[in-house]
Amino acid sequence: MTYELYYWPGIQGRGEFVRLALEEAGADYVDIALVPEEEGGGVPALQRYIAGDDVERPPFAPPFLKVGRRLIGQTSNILLFLGTKLGLAPRDETGRLWTHQLQLTVADFVDEIHDTHHPIAASLYYEEQQAEATRRTADFLEHRMPKYLGYFATVLERNKHGSGWLVGSSRTYVDLSVAQVVAGLTYAFPKRSKAVLDRFPGLVSLRERVFARPAIEAYVSSGRRTPFNQMGLFRHYPELDA
Amino acid sequence: MTYELYYWPGIQGRGEFVRLALEEAGADYVDIALVPEEEGGGVPALQRYIAGDDVERPPFAPPFLKVGRRLIGQTSNILLFLGTKLGLAPRDETGRLWTHQLQLTVADFVDEIHDTHHPIAASLYYEEQQAEATRRTADFLEHRMPKYLGYFATVLERNKHGSGWLVGSSRTYVDLSVAQVVAGLTYAFPKRSKAVLDRFPGLVSLRERVFARPAIEAYVSSGRRTPFNQMGLFRHYPELDA
Repeated sequence: MTYELYYWPGIQGRGEFVRLALEEAGADYVDIALVPEEEGGGVPALQRYIAGDDVERPPFAPPFLKVGRRLIGQTSNILLFLGTKLGLAPRDETGRLWTHQLQLTVADFVDEIHDTHHPIAASLYYEEQQAEATRRTADFLEHRMPKYLGYFATVLERNKHGSGWLVGSSRTYVDLSVAQVVAGLTYAFPKRSKAVLDRFPGLVSLRERVFARPAIEAYVSSGRRTPFNQMGLFRHYPELDA
Repeated sequence: MTYELYYWPGIQGRGEFVRLALEEAGADYVDIALVPEEEGGGVPALQRYIAGDDVERPPFAPPFLKVGRRLIGQTSNILLFLGTKLGLAPRDETGRLWTHQLQLTVADFVDEIHDTHHPIAASLYYEEQQAEATRRTADFLEHRMPKYLGYFATVLERNKHGSGWLVGSSRTYVDLSVAQVVAGLTYAFPKRSKAVLDRFPGLVSLRERVFARPAIEAYVSSGRRTPFNQMGLFRHYPELDA
């Protein structure tokens, strides 16, 4: 079974949480964003499923995963599915739901990160909402970022396995996602995120461990991972990192 | 098994999506928000699990559900769990994931609805971010509300069972949630939501069908359902419904 991942080309975005899971598990997949349009990839391939009149169960937005004839949408839902298939989640129901609960909390955090640079409308440029972004980001950096990071640090500490992973004794998809968020915040807000992460060394270690996994290291050094950039979820505007 | 639902007293909020599922299924549950503080309910009961040092797997925020000794957090995750237990979701994996995918899209919609009146910070009053709220709401009403409602109307239409429900041939938890959102938008933005809902009669019927379910009708007329109000998710500020 070859999975097909559909996401916007040119950015990591929410698709990257899925990519990290597929890569870590060594899954057989095609990243449609990297397939040229003339070979059936890119944005038109994606639009066909979002906007096509003949799609019985259309996703609202990318990313979505094509598995045979099935389309699975919503980042956290894709990871719920892959977690079971690829051995990236506990097998028992309690552990599976707890992992998913953490992933949904990552999703909330990611929404708030996005809205620091787009507090008014996703359809407008940052420059068109910069005053509002300044105000929203100030609250985010002061209150929300420490609250979320502190929460995940607490979850790490209270894991009774003391494994350094968030859930149980081995890595799950939510470890990959939290490591990605720590990396993204470090790119976007190098100054302010450092001040907070200095208080949560467990999260810094988690990031290091995830990106030192052989499969993740191979992925990053392959050149297939799009670098963080100013069109993605995590953006570095120095004036906001004040 | 008596379920315990933990959520803020005095508002419907995200807890209401869980209440509607519990009520529709006739589940045995205690709504801790309605239990007086001196009897172990209300906010202190909730804080004990959010902030207690001895909670191994703390929820980030309400709502959460206590099931025996387990705590299950995140609205959509609670519904994923209850869907299976209470017969409010399809039994097969494909149907279960599709229902959950729709619920996660409801959750995104709800976040955007919340941010119309709180675009800068949840910790500030509406009046402290009214200028930004005016701008964000204009975009929401013009672009986002029609996009989400149009999406759910399309899902209804394309359900090959033609049942008038979103998934398969009978009601699932996501029908209850979408009906609740339609009701909430009608409260918050009576003028602008009507203009859009007139184009999507399937959604108006869905709302009517859900609130005419005997168990839901009994719940609403029992007085246990908190009315929509100006502290919840859905707020009616006439100046925004322009």
